[in-house]
Amino acid sequence: MLLGQIPNTNAQEISVQLARLGVDVHHHTVVGDNPQRLAEALRQALKRADVVITTGGLGPTSDDITRETVAEVLGLKLKEDAGVLERLKSFLARAGVELDEENRRQAMVIEGSTVIPNEVGTAPGLIVESEERAVIMLPGPPGEMRRMLWKVSEFILSRMEGRRFIIFSRTLKAVGVPESWVEGRLKDMFSKYSNPSVAPTAAAWEVKIRITAKAEDEEKARSMIAGIEEEIRRRLGTAIYGADDESLEEVVGSFLRANGLTISVAESCTAGLLSARITNVPGSSDYFLGGVSAYSNSIKSSVLGIDPALIERCGAVSEEVATQMATCVRRLMNSDLSLAITGIAGPDGGTPAKPVGTVFIAMCCGDGARDVKVKKNHFPGGRDTVRRRSVHEALLMAYEYLVHRPALPSQPS
Amino acid sequence: MLLGQIPNTNAQEISVQLARLGVDVHHHTVVGDNPQRLAEALRQALKRADVVITTGGLGPTSDDITRETVAEVLGLKLKEDAGVLERLKSFLARAGVELDEENRRQAMVIEGSTVIPNEVGTAPGLIVESEERAVIMLPGPPGEMRRMLWKVSEFILSRMEGRRFIIFSRTLKAVGVPESWVEGRLKDMFSKYSNPSVAPTAAAWEVKIRITAKAEDEEKARSMIAGIEEEIRRRLGTAIYGADDESLEEVVGSFLRANGLTISVAESCTAGLLSARITNVPGSSDYFLGGVSAYSNSIKSSVLGIDPALIERCGAVSEEVATQMATCVRRLMNSDLSLAITGIAGPDGGTPAKPVGTVFIAMCCGDGARDVKVKKNHFPGGRDTVRRRSVHEALLMAYEYLVHRPALPSQPS
Repeated sequence: MLLGQIPNTNAQEISVQLARLGVDVHHHTVVGDNPQRLAEALRQALKRADVVITTGGLGPTSDDITRETVAEVLGLKLKEDAGVLERLKSFLARAGVELDEENRRQAMVIEGSTVIPNEVGTAPGLIVESEERAVIMLPGPPGEMRRMLWKVSEFILSRMEGRRFIIFSRTLKAVGVPESWVEGRLKDMFSKYSNPSVAPTAAAWEVKIRITAKAEDEEKARSMIAGIEEEIRRRLGTAIYGADDESLEEVVGSFLRANGLTISVAESCTAGLLSARITNVPGSSDYFLGGVSAYSNSIKSSVLGIDPALIERCGAVSEEVATQMATCVRRLMNSDLSLAITGIAGPDGGTPAKPVGTVFIAMCCGDGARDVKVKKNHFPGGRDTVRRRSVHEALLMAYEYLVHRPALPSQPS
Repeated sequence: MLLGQIPNTNAQEISVQLARLGVDVHHHTVVGDNPQRLAEALRQALKRADVVITTGGLGPTSDDITRETVAEVLGLKLKEDAGVLERLKSFLARAGVELDEENRRQAMVIEGSTVIPNEVGTAPGLIVESEERAVIMLPGPPGEMRRMLWKVSEFILSRMEGRRFIIFSRTLKAVGVPESWVEGRLKDMFSKYSNPSVAPTAAAWEVKIRITAKAEDEEKARSMIAGIEEEIRRRLGTAIYGADDESLEEVVGSFLRANGLTISVAESCTAGLLSARITNVPGSSDYFLGGVSAYSNSIKSSVLGIDPALIERCGAVSEEVATQMATCVRRLMNSDLSLAITGIAGPDGGTPAKPVGTVFIAMCCGDGARDVKVKKNHFPGGRDTVRRRSVHEALLMAYEYLVHRPALPSQPS
């Protein structure tokens, strides 16, 4: 982690869980596999916190020094635990591995500690507690750490009775409007409220507004947030497409399902990315029929049925071909709506007239010429960004057609 | 960050950069917007490190306390910097915002400090140095921090002359063989070498082996690594498909291009994910023609041309339909090779005979009945995992057919 090779996902996950429990987290500290520096970090942490949680360093190799160092700092001894040894043996046996001296180290526990069994790995977690302080040692692999978090939560709650509050947040998400428009409409709320607080948060291609409440429990926090959420939704209207983990594809999908509509897609530069994103949503088979990745021009003609002369004349990345892709795939798949994307994702293929990032997005919702909408875009960024942005904008086009019709930004505030 | 709402990507990015420069990173510390705790963390850091880097807390709001706290800890004063104020004004003017008192705080710098201009935001970075120690303050938004890293690197290098070494790693990646097979073949290398060291690292669905060298410069490190890499490749053969950022789709693509072969895909449960992954690779239009997301059964028949009676009889998730999807899409797109995926990604749709995670993957490489290969899989995990794993296994099937033919695991070691 100090070499930057892996991110500190454990610190984040543990912090999320502790926030849910209403526990204030005051420090994250990362140190290397160095006994002096680890001991020093532990001594400091024990001076300033009621509970210290460590992750990592419980494995079998010689640079796994957490157990030993915690024992030394607390002035406690290590002893082999028969139960842990037994579980270790049977775990290794299932993996077809014999217990050796190195592995056996993992059966050493700190005297008086509580063992948290490891269901998916070899090293158990340990809890050492005194009247005043507790040290919780969890294994480093995120999958193993995660499974112990609930056990740890119970323990922490049991020590905290009577001094609990929780921090709970809800994030509203807006699209199709500039950040300045949102801030103009909510500015007074950002400064007026402190609990719950309202703040804009950084997000790509959309605007997020976070409402955060501090309360005795989640129910209380939720009810504190509800009124403010209502006010924000009233001010921003359908520019708010959802909250928290709700995605644009989910919201578009729910609308299609509720109205008995189906959709299909034709993709060139995004080649399946839009189709894959729509089907991220469980149950999307209710409205998504299918798609064509028409990556080469021959497929645009042979599968979608676009006139090769049109492609020759206008270029594969053009308003005309985007229009044809949308109309043809709608007809081919017999869907109510269709979306199409054709563009230059780069790094090569750009021209002065159509530089990298030029992407045409089309939507078709009927047989008439006026039932097709096309938009020309210039997206900044590399290949991957251009592709992901194209998919986002295609979904936004569907959202704006289906749900968010008014051109909000031009309305008087 | 202490609430777990955002990951500490800055710590990771800075650590990667410092490792490149050969700078040992001994601690990461995260504290909240609390002046006492921040001051304490700074005092500790200054006791144990030559250079302390902070990120965040340089913005305009009242909880941005880094400048003030660093000044206080170092016993220095803040003063308004005319150059910074000027840049701030013109930056805000471009965004159509007037300078207010809050924003103006960002023009306050610590006396004697060096200003690092912020090209993409308002708060500049600051460097305060004495003979013995330096504090580098960088803004929190990753995009702003990142742009200052090179400037910071130059500064750190200038202070480090004469005590440099770098840590450089190369990661080899193996697929299609179990971890135990790799470890069996490399075990002696894991323990024998220390510089460069050889170690297995955790990875999903593949096995990674990291070779790490410590040397005066990257060239030296690379040559230390080269001999060991050669030995590992000799022992593992084509089970090693690539190194570092090389992906399976890139390796498969290069082989297709080198041999003048084309490929197409038909996808049901993954609905475009395989197509999107193949086209992650710039230049993939040389060999990828296109794909069909045949999500609904009607599309499997109407677009791919699969007999509806077959789907009715065997089920859409079956060896027979997978076979037909591969043969039909190969014919439809007129490609040399084709891949097809049909399965149950969940959460619904599973049956006792075909539970969630049942995925059939087929490859077709000719017109004869023996030119189709089908594999039935049971993948653990949720919808997203099953879909991504399916795509991985389809690419692996192509890799094994094209490159990695021998059934390595069954050979004597």
